[in-house]
Amino acid sequence: MDKVKPEMTYIDKNFHRFVTELQEAVRRPSIAAQNIGMEEAALYFKNLMEAYGINAKIIPTKGYPCVYGEIKGKSDKTVLFYNHYDVQPPEPLEEWESDPFSASIRDGKIYGRGVSDNKGNACARIQGIGTMLKLREELPVTVKFLIEGEEEIGSPNLSDFVRENADLLRADYGVWESGYMNPDGRPGIYLGVKGMLYVELFAKGASKDMHSGSATTIPNPAWHLVWALASIKNKEEQILIPGFYDDILPPTEKELEMLKDAMHEEELSEEKAREIARKNAQSLGLNNYLLDLYGLELRKRSLFSPTANICGFKSGYLGEGQKTVLPSTALVKMDFRLVPNQDPYDILEKLNTHLKQEGFDDVEVRVISLDYPVKTPAELPIVDATKEAALSVYKKPPVVSPTQGGSGPMYPFKKYLDLPMVSFGVGYWNSSNHAPNENIRLVDYKSGIKMVVEFIDKVAEL
Amino acid sequence: MDKVKPEMTYIDKNFHRFVTELQEAVRRPSIAAQNIGMEEAALYFKNLMEAYGINAKIIPTKGYPCVYGEIKGKSDKTVLFYNHYDVQPPEPLEEWESDPFSASIRDGKIYGRGVSDNKGNACARIQGIGTMLKLREELPVTVKFLIEGEEEIGSPNLSDFVRENADLLRADYGVWESGYMNPDGRPGIYLGVKGMLYVELFAKGASKDMHSGSATTIPNPAWHLVWALASIKNKEEQILIPGFYDDILPPTEKELEMLKDAMHEEELSEEKAREIARKNAQSLGLNNYLLDLYGLELRKRSLFSPTANICGFKSGYLGEGQKTVLPSTALVKMDFRLVPNQDPYDILEKLNTHLKQEGFDDVEVRVISLDYPVKTPAELPIVDATKEAALSVYKKPPVVSPTQGGSGPMYPFKKYLDLPMVSFGVGYWNSSNHAPNENIRLVDYKSGIKMVVEFIDKVAEL
Repeated sequence: MDKVKPEMTYIDKNFHRFVTELQEAVRRPSIAAQNIGMEEAALYFKNLMEAYGINAKIIPTKGYPCVYGEIKGKSDKTVLFYNHYDVQPPEPLEEWESDPFSASIRDGKIYGRGVSDNKGNACARIQGIGTMLKLREELPVTVKFLIEGEEEIGSPNLSDFVRENADLLRADYGVWESGYMNPDGRPGIYLGVKGMLYVELFAKGASKDMHSGSATTIPNPAWHLVWALASIKNKEEQILIPGFYDDILPPTEKELEMLKDAMHEEELSEEKAREIARKNAQSLGLNNYLLDLYGLELRKRSLFSPTANICGFKSGYLGEGQKTVLPSTALVKMDFRLVPNQDPYDILEKLNTHLKQEGFDDVEVRVISLDYPVKTPAELPIVDATKEAALSVYKKPPVVSPTQGGSGPMYPFKKYLDLPMVSFGVGYWNSSNHAPNENIRLVDYKSGIKMVVEFIDKVAEL
Repeated sequence: MDKVKPEMTYIDKNFHRFVTELQEAVRRPSIAAQNIGMEEAALYFKNLMEAYGINAKIIPTKGYPCVYGEIKGKSDKTVLFYNHYDVQPPEPLEEWESDPFSASIRDGKIYGRGVSDNKGNACARIQGIGTMLKLREELPVTVKFLIEGEEEIGSPNLSDFVRENADLLRADYGVWESGYMNPDGRPGIYLGVKGMLYVELFAKGASKDMHSGSATTIPNPAWHLVWALASIKNKEEQILIPGFYDDILPPTEKELEMLKDAMHEEELSEEKAREIARKNAQSLGLNNYLLDLYGLELRKRSLFSPTANICGFKSGYLGEGQKTVLPSTALVKMDFRLVPNQDPYDILEKLNTHLKQEGFDDVEVRVISLDYPVKTPAELPIVDATKEAALSVYKKPPVVSPTQGGSGPMYPFKKYLDLPMVSFGVGYWNSSNHAPNENIRLVDYKSGIKMVVEFIDKVAEL
């Protein structure tokens, strides 16, 4: 048996303080989309790093600033942690059981907007490195932190920032923002992110809302968007934009193996797999998953399929009761999650061409953000090192995913730094990122801090 | 030349007071859909009638009360005026140039929610009858007023009210709620209303909003409604519900004649008609009317075609910027305007059957209101009497429409009282009913009061 590292005991003893520091981070709302509390949150992370002896500074960008931290280690081998201090808007507020920025603790969980995505991870990493600094003369490797403030609005300035600061950020290994425990208690490690194209579709009718009696003769922009959307995806969930699927790489044998490895033993029986999928779907209030998928097919679709998702649809009268109005505008927010090797700029062009060809010249496409999909090869030694660290902390084999359902601005790190990225963190399968009652479990938070220590020690051995 | 009636001079002299009374009515918001200010508005109309010597009382219903007024005349021949004191919600507030309940006057217009629909008409009628009572010993005919409080929410209790109070309401002629001047300065007279089916379509996905990364495997209720809607109407504006058009009566020869009579002389040239239509459409911020219609076809569609209109679509994130969410619910508000002889209950059944057949069992159809279409035969003497009164007041031939784009609860009056209805009023073509900056012109308001006097005198001659 491994000897227990002093860091692990230290983390156990100081856990209350670590939790309080996280709560303080959550209590500083930092909603980039709504320009709320951004400076204060950036300052909080800078101060937190400095309190742990990490050299930190705030670096301006054209948008919200980045927080940068660095501490030289015994070796020049360098690990860069990427996180973000901005959070999603908390709406719909009425669905939260406690104030989204109160960081309430109940039933062994901390609830709050950003507690999982991504302040919990940012804090755990600072605290893990901070713990090592307390107990050792020196870190075994050099560690850098980059905590940006625009991830939830599509990181519009990150690519320029990474390019312009390539020397500062240069590293051998990168750790991406987050990770989740699965329902079997196995920690997740992720080797990539999906890409994304986030757009608004906007349609205009008359110059003002009209009495709906005029619907015989006045065009209705809500109908235009309905028809435009119906031309984009059919009810069999097929995306109808010509060429949309053309560049997709099928999963490799190794990737499929990783998916199988992630499955619960029981899922190897088809009948059981179907039953488990239905049960999981029911816990989300559904009869079954989309297209009634289960088992390996469900996981394949989850990781290797792109999406065309409606994030929001707003037109006309949204209040209670009856209002007979013909709306003058309609707005849809959509995200397309993309998989290797789809190119968000190419998909945007295909979307525009498609809408024109279908006669929707009047639908304005407003680009909100674009991200490339990125994948770290599963064969790299850093992947094994991360798996070993996770096994040592969690005592269960980690689930390694070739990519994940979510997206993120990983591409500039690949493009400008050629940085291989792994991702792990403090969330779990029910953390409700981007949704009401976002939460993490205290037990996962503690393990997440320990994981940082083990990871750094494993990297040192590479 | 006609001798000027003393009532006309009286109306000119007292017009400032009449306007002030209307402003006071508008300044009492009475939004049935939001349960705001209803009792106060009902009381205001009761008091106004009493101030003019009309016997008035408030009669409770299962919903908002009705205001009833009556004044016996020389003859038992009876005219019933139908109006309503409730108004549409004022939203979107940011598009109003002045507070919707301030009843501001500028450029010869009064602006305010309900000033056209329907408080202006209710006031003008009370003031017209009030004027006659001031200057004559007795009205030539008996006059009754019914001002209900639920028209904008589909008059859910009016049918029962008319049935239960048939003796009280009994009359020989009915005057419906409103009328509008056309751009040529000709007053409108309307002989009917469209029917309506107002529904909400509601779809549910997961029990909570999810991160949009899950869109690979979690159904999205916004997509379900998009597909359901696309199955209801196609982009050629054809309504696809089987049997939807089956019961429609084509316009009669006489009705088509009325449409032609309503047209501006210039519109008889096809080229000119197209030009006029485009110009009118452009004044509404459009390139052209729906399906690029103009002239007679435009008018035919406007009056004799049913509609399937999206009044509102609400799902997911409606705020600024980017939120990558998979919504848990989606809600659409729709109205179907119906023409003779479509039956709203039959259309509802056909809609339900259609959605089931198309696989949208999961879309919940919530009925908000139903109205039958109604038409008064153009041959009745009351129609000619109304035309003569209008010609005398407006000095231009009125435009008689066999029906109108809007709907209303006219059916109970036909069913329980067999009452022939005509409609005229104080609005104009740009009154923006149900929309921001609803307004009437002061000049039309004055004529509208005079029209009441002339109409009563013409009815007395029948």
